[in-house]
Amino acid sequence: MASLLRNTNPLVSPLLTDKYQFTMAYAYWKGKRHQDHATFDLFYRRNPFKGSFAQFAGLDEILRFMSSFKITNDDLDFLKKDMSQCDPGYFKWLKNLDCSEVTIHAHKEGNIVFPKEPLVRVDGPLGILQLLETPFLNLTNYATLMTTNARRMRIAAGQDKTLLEFGCRRAQGPDGALSASRYSYIGGFDASSHVLAGKMFGIPIKGTHAHSWVSSMKDTSEINVRNLTYFKNGQKKEIDFVDFVLENQKKLGWTATNKGELAAFIDYALAFPTYFLGLVDTYDTLSSGIPNFLIVAYSLYQLGYLPIGVRLDSGKLSTLSRKTRKMFQDFAKKTSTPHFAKLKIVASNDINEGVLYDLKKEGSEIDIYGIGTHLVTCQAQPALGAVFKLVEINDEPRIKLSNSFGKITVPGKKNSYRLFGKNGQAITDVMTLFDEQPPQAHKQYTCCDFFDSHKKISVIPSKVEPLLQKVWDHKLIHKLPHVKEIKEFGDSQAQKFDPKLFQRKDPISYPVTLSSKLYEKMHQLWDEALAPQIFD
Amino acid sequence: MASLLRNTNPLVSPLLTDKYQFTMAYAYWKGKRHQDHATFDLFYRRNPFKGSFAQFAGLDEILRFMSSFKITNDDLDFLKKDMSQCDPGYFKWLKNLDCSEVTIHAHKEGNIVFPKEPLVRVDGPLGILQLLETPFLNLTNYATLMTTNARRMRIAAGQDKTLLEFGCRRAQGPDGALSASRYSYIGGFDASSHVLAGKMFGIPIKGTHAHSWVSSMKDTSEINVRNLTYFKNGQKKEIDFVDFVLENQKKLGWTATNKGELAAFIDYALAFPTYFLGLVDTYDTLSSGIPNFLIVAYSLYQLGYLPIGVRLDSGKLSTLSRKTRKMFQDFAKKTSTPHFAKLKIVASNDINEGVLYDLKKEGSEIDIYGIGTHLVTCQAQPALGAVFKLVEINDEPRIKLSNSFGKITVPGKKNSYRLFGKNGQAITDVMTLFDEQPPQAHKQYTCCDFFDSHKKISVIPSKVEPLLQKVWDHKLIHKLPHVKEIKEFGDSQAQKFDPKLFQRKDPISYPVTLSSKLYEKMHQLWDEALAPQIFD
Repeated sequence: MASLLRNTNPLVSPLLTDKYQFTMAYAYWKGKRHQDHATFDLFYRRNPFKGSFAQFAGLDEILRFMSSFKITNDDLDFLKKDMSQCDPGYFKWLKNLDCSEVTIHAHKEGNIVFPKEPLVRVDGPLGILQLLETPFLNLTNYATLMTTNARRMRIAAGQDKTLLEFGCRRAQGPDGALSASRYSYIGGFDASSHVLAGKMFGIPIKGTHAHSWVSSMKDTSEINVRNLTYFKNGQKKEIDFVDFVLENQKKLGWTATNKGELAAFIDYALAFPTYFLGLVDTYDTLSSGIPNFLIVAYSLYQLGYLPIGVRLDSGKLSTLSRKTRKMFQDFAKKTSTPHFAKLKIVASNDINEGVLYDLKKEGSEIDIYGIGTHLVTCQAQPALGAVFKLVEINDEPRIKLSNSFGKITVPGKKNSYRLFGKNGQAITDVMTLFDEQPPQAHKQYTCCDFFDSHKKISVIPSKVEPLLQKVWDHKLIHKLPHVKEIKEFGDSQAQKFDPKLFQRKDPISYPVTLSSKLYEKMHQLWDEALAPQIFD
Repeated sequence: MASLLRNTNPLVSPLLTDKYQFTMAYAYWKGKRHQDHATFDLFYRRNPFKGSFAQFAGLDEILRFMSSFKITNDDLDFLKKDMSQCDPGYFKWLKNLDCSEVTIHAHKEGNIVFPKEPLVRVDGPLGILQLLETPFLNLTNYATLMTTNARRMRIAAGQDKTLLEFGCRRAQGPDGALSASRYSYIGGFDASSHVLAGKMFGIPIKGTHAHSWVSSMKDTSEINVRNLTYFKNGQKKEIDFVDFVLENQKKLGWTATNKGELAAFIDYALAFPTYFLGLVDTYDTLSSGIPNFLIVAYSLYQLGYLPIGVRLDSGKLSTLSRKTRKMFQDFAKKTSTPHFAKLKIVASNDINEGVLYDLKKEGSEIDIYGIGTHLVTCQAQPALGAVFKLVEINDEPRIKLSNSFGKITVPGKKNSYRLFGKNGQAITDVMTLFDEQPPQAHKQYTCCDFFDSHKKISVIPSKVEPLLQKVWDHKLIHKLPHVKEIKEFGDSQAQKFDPKLFQRKDPISYPVTLSSKLYEKMHQLWDEALAPQIFD
């Protein structure tokens, strides 16, 4: 099974890494420590976007990377040249290296996660594990950040809105775009504009036309193909659609609209009579775009085609959407076409999480949001900062202290559990030593704060969920889920927590805690590691 | 020549695009307008990072994309299924589509550029041009933003510092990382940690070790290979380096430092005696990291190896670097080893443009900066927002108005020129109609503001540089330059402008202007396009 897996991006290889991984691996090998048994934790330190949670993603890509891990002869030639001072035996070792001695436990992709708890725990020989650090971080950092960002936008927009990812042109390169499409879908978006994401992942794709379509025409004389086929009483008929629309224009009294725009709408409707959605802000939304759209949409309607709606891409979206809705409603009344009152209003242009909350508050009439830049670049915080830290070697836990207090690691090979209360909501995620008794349902359990020995939570959980599941045991042990399954799991997770955790303003924080034994172990190692302060 | 070019990222394909490009292309095809001759401009609207310039990049990737443009049978199968309502003839047309009817003029990659001027001008049939929009934007937006960000950091750090890109783990996926390495190099960085960037682009790569290396050891009993080879009076000798270091430790009097850290430094020095650089903040920088480093470095020095220096990765970098330098200087004096006073101090950890200015002001003693997150994510502004707009069709210029004033386009197929003053500094970039007489050196020329008819600059340029060079004429017409050539060109451009343009605080702005004829044309079209305001 494993041999069939490929990286989504063919660029992904063991060389997608920092050079210091190869120098360290060399030094481990040279010092005969490369086969020492080690454990690394992948975790992040602070919740992104000033929030109280993240949503984990990237596991699928990590497992693909593990499956296909191979340093090619070409790679070796490059490394030999770049590290010419190194013993040639090292490169022989690299040539045969793979992930067959590694075990991986991880959170399920799409799970809601919290700072400091291991999202991925990696056990195996020190040498190969060191070489996994940068690729693992590259493949999970942006994935998790992006999924979290999408989830926050989904929460901001509400469940009843349709969310479309429009970021391909603003993402960080081709793969940034593809990842953005994948992870916004997992994080709660409904579809993407990105064709390659549709092809590769089966994500629904959407799109109609741009401003260039509208500005490409000057008037209806440029329309080359004028006839539209339609059906009346089951019979196929043809009509000069241009003349038909121009007559309707006169009847409706909107004769001073932009001529090029009207021609472009007609030409687009001729190509997509069953899916007519007009971008209405190329010249002026309310005085030209909407009337031109309505003239063409009404003509289609008379021939039995149901128009879809409009897209607003500039200006004050809440006001414009309300005025647009009013025009639709007035038109529906005037022409006795109730369908027109409920036409869809799509909005794009610089939408972010804050704008979504504002638009809701202002009572906008937008049905569908197309979000690009702020979604895919995670403008509010463009990096997650997850890290990959050595926590145990040869069965001895290791700690990393630091001149920055927040950078201290929780030592040792660990398990972690989510404890639920009677109402079905999660209470705390608790980390334990690897080999201690897990917390049990309906039994009292003491959870400790990281630093304050007096701060403890005593819990009688109604349910205990192990968070780290084995996903790689010398090889892949389950079939990888389809992106749709990951999305469905991701979409279902928020309900397991207090909704106040997800609010934008003053979200409550969720406690991540330690078992008593892990607390003791951590502080003992901390004391041992500190050197007396001999300089000042 | 063209057939040999491949996209850097194999994921890049005509499907790396928004679906609306394929729906529009269909509608053009269906309306028999796909062969209409069009011109699109790629440009951006506002300078990034609150600055007064950008540095253009991504042209190489655009040209590779053009060369390899091919919609595969696999792609067609997907499109046919997704756009099942479309006429099958469309897919036949797509199957044979390539860029052989397209002409491209562009700024040289690495050039300093300004808002609203075309960075790339594309001429050719409307259908194919529409399909180039999203890939072109994807391949230039982040490239230009990233190059500009790197250039700003180079300017902030000064020419005498070494700048290393360390962003692989924080970039937006695999390709974000690779692009970040490439474009930070073009933007003035010296090297990268990214191995794949070294292999693919020939960018110098750097790296030593991480915290995990240090925390992997508890004491010197874990060192498996103790002997170091060295040369004395031309003779090869061996020594138990561990014992040698431990003796030096006693002599130097630093006996209470962290034992694991000392062991790790010794083990690393054993692997890389000619390139010993220690990461000194795993436990405590000043009381453990620096003394441990000096003990090992001094031992190497005595055996004829020159140690390199240290890396600081947490804490207050200016203070720590000054204290470190003081310790190096004291040590050099005490041991009569002048080399130690000048050891390199590398700093990493959350460095951005502002921090670089601050560190300079605070008189830090840092020689080398390793910059990751803020560089590669362009945290200060993670998207450029370049656009690709139709400006002419069938020899008639087109304008796009908008409810947002700043989104108005400059119509028509244009040329653009950089006018230089007597001091060799650029004065203005002026856009002209395609077919009008270019400005000439030593002749007076009138440059108009975009909107204010009274605001004009009269210039007698000492030199006139055409900015748009032909790079694709139905096929690639020059060999693509190596990334090093692009970098050298990029590094040399800033000197052509007033240095005040590049300062962080209140940079002067650079005028982008229009010829009188283009000004007139633009405002005439604007008047024609506006519909009377019939709604309110």
